Amino acid sequence: MRHFEEELENLRNRLLEMSGLVEDSVYRSIQSLIEKDEAAAQQVLQNEARINRMEIQIDELATSLLARVQPMATDLRFITAAIKINNDLERMGDISVNIVRRTLALMGEPISKVLVDIPHMATLAQSMIRKSLDAFVRKDPELARSILTSDDVIDQLRDSVYEELIGLMERDPTTVRQSINLMFIARALERLADHATNIAEDVLFLVEGVEVRHHAEVHE
Amino acid sequence: MRHFEEELENLRNRLLEMSGLVEDSVYRSIQSLIEKDEAAAQQVLQNEARINRMEIQIDELATSLLARVQPMATDLRFITAAIKINNDLERMGDISVNIVRRTLALMGEPISKVLVDIPHMATLAQSMIRKSLDAFVRKDPELARSILTSDDVIDQLRDSVYEELIGLMERDPTTVRQSINLMFIARALERLADHATNIAEDVLFLVEGVEVRHHAEVHE
Repeated sequence: MRHFEEELENLRNRLLEMSGLVEDSVYRSIQSLIEKDEAAAQQVLQNEARINRMEIQIDELATSLLARVQPMATDLRFITAAIKINNDLERMGDISVNIVRRTLALMGEPISKVLVDIPHMATLAQSMIRKSLDAFVRKDPELARSILTSDDVIDQLRDSVYEELIGLMERDPTTVRQSINLMFIARALERLADHATNIAEDVLFLVEGVEVRHHAEVHE
Repeated sequence: MRHFEEELENLRNRLLEMSGLVEDSVYRSIQSLIEKDEAAAQQVLQNEARINRMEIQIDELATSLLARVQPMATDLRFITAAIKINNDLERMGDISVNIVRRTLALMGEPISKVLVDIPHMATLAQSMIRKSLDAFVRKDPELARSILTSDDVIDQLRDSVYEELIGLMERDPTTVRQSINLMFIARALERLADHATNIAEDVLFLVEGVEVRHHAEVHE
């Protein structure tokens, strides 16, 4: 039993390590976008392989815990939440890579005025990610709940970025390629926020046993 | 023990029911796109709530199986694969809804010539989904493996659709709004194929115990 609890602690620590690395990738991808920082972009590409390896290791650790011990209801909830959060984190790592690829394609071009709303989305998405992981660490349902509302704000920002970019392309077709890159970046930021929302939902399920998935609209 | 095996069978059947419903949504979303079939589109929107409820029920069923029985290694692999496949199926349902929303926005407009490659992507994505679910039902690793190669073809098709649409928008900015919808549809089809690939990877892990995730590039 002692051993089981040590392994749970180990799972928790590996997950925190993974979330640290993913937060680093998200931060640097946004840095690379806003500051045109190519070194930050390269670091994100380098993190990717490590994140992928960690995802598999955490999955194996969690599955072996499920296999070897008859878990208590709360331990079981923790392990299944860990498996889901692990999956969300890995996807956030992938999304950071996508942001960086689009950003590298944009480098050297003059910054479009539309970029103003994108840093706003980026800041909000980052703060949602931070809060969702804090909510997990502190088992704080209030903090988790606050993230569900921010998700609607992100969706509105994305819609307004889309509309601005469509208008820009219609008026000036030479901006099409750049605008498409910015559109996919806005979409990536919104998806980062979706994953933070998923984590917040997992925290609520973990702490309160309440199922809050599919509370509003389609997350995809 | 008898009871446990019945419940495993129940989990398997619920998952097949879920996959039937999701396949229906995918099929109708593509139907609505290609045939401008509004009734098919409406059916997809109606399926959504049912798919979401089924996802939660299957998750609960799988988790309760994990909680109450000390699973064998193979049973454990089956249950964790079921949890992952369930999640992929639910996202495929969401993606069908996204395709339908974009398709409804396109209805009434003349079909662009670029649409030719999109039905091609749609057919391929649909066949990958069918094969991935067949591979799961039949525990067929060869079939699962064949899906991993198709995924690269889908990515190439998506890139060529993107390039064609960018060219079209640059030449004729009145097509911007329509082209963006088509671009997001191409992206949605590629993501459907990604989820079929995830399922194929889960089947390989289930049958052979081989971890094949992250075999190639970023899926996001």
